[in-house]
Amino acid sequence: MLSEKDTICAISTAQGMGAIAVIRLSGDQSIAICEKIFRPAKANKSLASQKANTIHFGSIYNGDKDIDEVLISIFKAPHSFTGEEIVEIACHGAPYIQQQVLQLLTKNGARLATAGEFTQRAFLNGKMDLSQAEAVADLIASRSEAARRVALQQMRGGFSNELVNLRMQLLNFISLIELELDFSEEDVEFANRTELTKLVDEIATLLKKLVNSFSLGNAIKNGIPVAIVGHTNAGKSTLLNTLLQEERAIVSDIHGTTRDVIEDTINIEGIGFRFIDTAGIRATKDEIENLGIERTYDKISKATIVLLMLDVNDPDEKIHDAISDVKKRLDEHQQLIVVINKTDLADDSATTDRFSKDSFKELSGTDAIVPISAKKQLNIDALTDALLKTVNLSAIDNDEVIVTNVRHYEALQKSYEAIQRVVDGLQSGISGDFLAQDIREVLHFLGEITGQINTDEVLGNIFKNFCIGK
Amino acid sequence: MLSEKDTICAISTAQGMGAIAVIRLSGDQSIAICEKIFRPAKANKSLASQKANTIHFGSIYNGDKDIDEVLISIFKAPHSFTGEEIVEIACHGAPYIQQQVLQLLTKNGARLATAGEFTQRAFLNGKMDLSQAEAVADLIASRSEAARRVALQQMRGGFSNELVNLRMQLLNFISLIELELDFSEEDVEFANRTELTKLVDEIATLLKKLVNSFSLGNAIKNGIPVAIVGHTNAGKSTLLNTLLQEERAIVSDIHGTTRDVIEDTINIEGIGFRFIDTAGIRATKDEIENLGIERTYDKISKATIVLLMLDVNDPDEKIHDAISDVKKRLDEHQQLIVVINKTDLADDSATTDRFSKDSFKELSGTDAIVPISAKKQLNIDALTDALLKTVNLSAIDNDEVIVTNVRHYEALQKSYEAIQRVVDGLQSGISGDFLAQDIREVLHFLGEITGQINTDEVLGNIFKNFCIGK
Repeated sequence: MLSEKDTICAISTAQGMGAIAVIRLSGDQSIAICEKIFRPAKANKSLASQKANTIHFGSIYNGDKDIDEVLISIFKAPHSFTGEEIVEIACHGAPYIQQQVLQLLTKNGARLATAGEFTQRAFLNGKMDLSQAEAVADLIASRSEAARRVALQQMRGGFSNELVNLRMQLLNFISLIELELDFSEEDVEFANRTELTKLVDEIATLLKKLVNSFSLGNAIKNGIPVAIVGHTNAGKSTLLNTLLQEERAIVSDIHGTTRDVIEDTINIEGIGFRFIDTAGIRATKDEIENLGIERTYDKISKATIVLLMLDVNDPDEKIHDAISDVKKRLDEHQQLIVVINKTDLADDSATTDRFSKDSFKELSGTDAIVPISAKKQLNIDALTDALLKTVNLSAIDNDEVIVTNVRHYEALQKSYEAIQRVVDGLQSGISGDFLAQDIREVLHFLGEITGQINTDEVLGNIFKNFCIGK
Repeated sequence: MLSEKDTICAISTAQGMGAIAVIRLSGDQSIAICEKIFRPAKANKSLASQKANTIHFGSIYNGDKDIDEVLISIFKAPHSFTGEEIVEIACHGAPYIQQQVLQLLTKNGARLATAGEFTQRAFLNGKMDLSQAEAVADLIASRSEAARRVALQQMRGGFSNELVNLRMQLLNFISLIELELDFSEEDVEFANRTELTKLVDEIATLLKKLVNSFSLGNAIKNGIPVAIVGHTNAGKSTLLNTLLQEERAIVSDIHGTTRDVIEDTINIEGIGFRFIDTAGIRATKDEIENLGIERTYDKISKATIVLLMLDVNDPDEKIHDAISDVKKRLDEHQQLIVVINKTDLADDSATTDRFSKDSFKELSGTDAIVPISAKKQLNIDALTDALLKTVNLSAIDNDEVIVTNVRHYEALQKSYEAIQRVVDGLQSGISGDFLAQDIREVLHFLGEITGQINTDEVLGNIFKNFCIGK
């Protein structure tokens, strides 16, 4: 069994060769273990006698053999990330050297950290609550401005501070209600029902808001799903390349920019859009083609935005038919953007008149019709504007609290259902013991979010998805 | 033009996602630029007023928008790697965040560092000589224990300290000799010829030793080239896998170990061996096969070790013929190891008697014949011992000075040739002006190694091969 008392170590920087790499130690033996393998370049002063938050130059030794020249940073309990003694060793970034130093640490009493174990210790030592710990992983994985922002806010306490506070107030009430139960024969009321109702309403309102924020939060975290409908020659891949170029242009002056190209996720003004290609839609009796169409409908049903790509040279009737056909598959939460491509092949003034939204009774709400040329990169701004309209940018800009984590969402939903029962119970004046039971449920689910209530299993599930070294 | 006065910045840790990443700034505006985007978590004390070698927790801001929580390390001139003010920002390791912080730094007055620019500044500011600077890159690229060790020794001044010292003494002599030239009519001798001869001999001996160390140094740095000769069914790939397994077993308990599998370089006891597969050698009149054989001979000529793989079931005559055939292609510096594979398919006692080295008059010096079973992993130790015998392990173990760099090797060779002319000149008593000319050449080439004599072109060539951030 791995113990929480062990001093743990791991490489905390990205894998591979860099100029430098950082190896992190945490636990009450961190400094002592380092002392065994480190010789300072100057003044033979022990690391233990050095002040917190200071840096020391010297060499790592394996017995008499020197391994590397390093910088050692010292952090002392409880004023460190984990709340324990932390030592960070910055060595030269050869993977070979990183491994040598790591092996030397394990040989001298540290053990390799499991995934997320540093953050888990920060949580267990009360440096952060569970939702904050989870935000650390989100922050590291963030690939867009919005995702970074929401994760940082959550890491700083975002909604959990407020939840902890409200839960505390609710805890006070329940102890009063339970006191009433002890005196049940005397029919006393220690818990002020008016105040309790006020608190419960406040909690219900907050929970409702948090639950509702999840659809935006989920989209921010995973990218907003955009299904592209249109035949290959409609210019889908040209459009994706054009959007990709705009994104790349922003970062092209920075060396080392890399993108994950496995999925066509494109950042537009800090929001990630996840583009999903689909087969075209066409009425057909061919069974195999119908199968493809089924899959297209399935992808469409999971998208937040459906981007229908048509050709400017198509006759009006064909365009109207295509729009109607797609539109009838969408529910009211889904947005349709009709992209009329290849405007470079059509007369400009005719295009503008022909494709005003008013001429398309099929479109509603935030739906849009945008004539573009993907090839000549004309009117792409109008398209990105239409895409961004689906996102509640003001919520992000105003740093409103946004829930991005499925685990939180589920616990919040259950809390909300339970608090509704409390609201109803208070209105109908149910007995104290039933009331207490519903409140206990609320306390339980709220506690799960912040980790005030947790099990090894829950913690295990959360931290196993972290990277090693965090 | 990029100026040496600019404050430069770069990501110094490996590319990609990690728990943390380190962004480094160097230059006299480092702290001032950081001050513009950093807000400390506690005590509103300016970074500039903080002590050197201290760490500060806080947040990076873009105007009013917070980007990330970071740790800032401060190093002050001249006591830093570059000799300038250095700030290191440890941020969360999302590539997106790294790029954001980097962009923010460039927006606030830093410029992106070119490859190796931090180390180049360390050189230009006199923190290290040129050969030490080059060793930094070698250390980062080191993939074996021996390569790491030799690079570290060179980084610490290895041979350059001694060269600088001897060059300085030689400089004193040349000024005396040039003084003689001013008084040439009076036939005085300010420079003591006996002492000069002693110094020159000392330099010549050192240079000879350094020049000779290069073949080992080059092998350590790039891996010792081993040409494997033998038909596919001789078990070449099985052998490589077996050797690879032994190497892997050593590091398998460490998470995140990665190997470069593009080349079959295998570490054996800290030495890298670069295995080069060749076609078999067989007398043939077929033109196409002869072409393959030409290539095989070519590869063999470049190898330090030739590993001839034969089958235990081959008749003695065939084995002798194959050995003679390969052996006649080798020069005296190349070692032949005859591997008799598939001993698991032969009687054990017969094998030992049959393949003693004495029975093979074709073999000489450190050549070896080793019966093994690659498949059953029998006697592999004897094979690795034979491989390691080619390497002067004691030179590495005793931290003898070993030259690994082609540029140094060439300059050392030229220095050696020039110093030989000085030796000859002193013996034959040539005139002071000819002597001075030869000594000047020695001074020049020695100065090139340590960078006391350098050009922008030389520096450019050296540092362009560094990674960014170092």
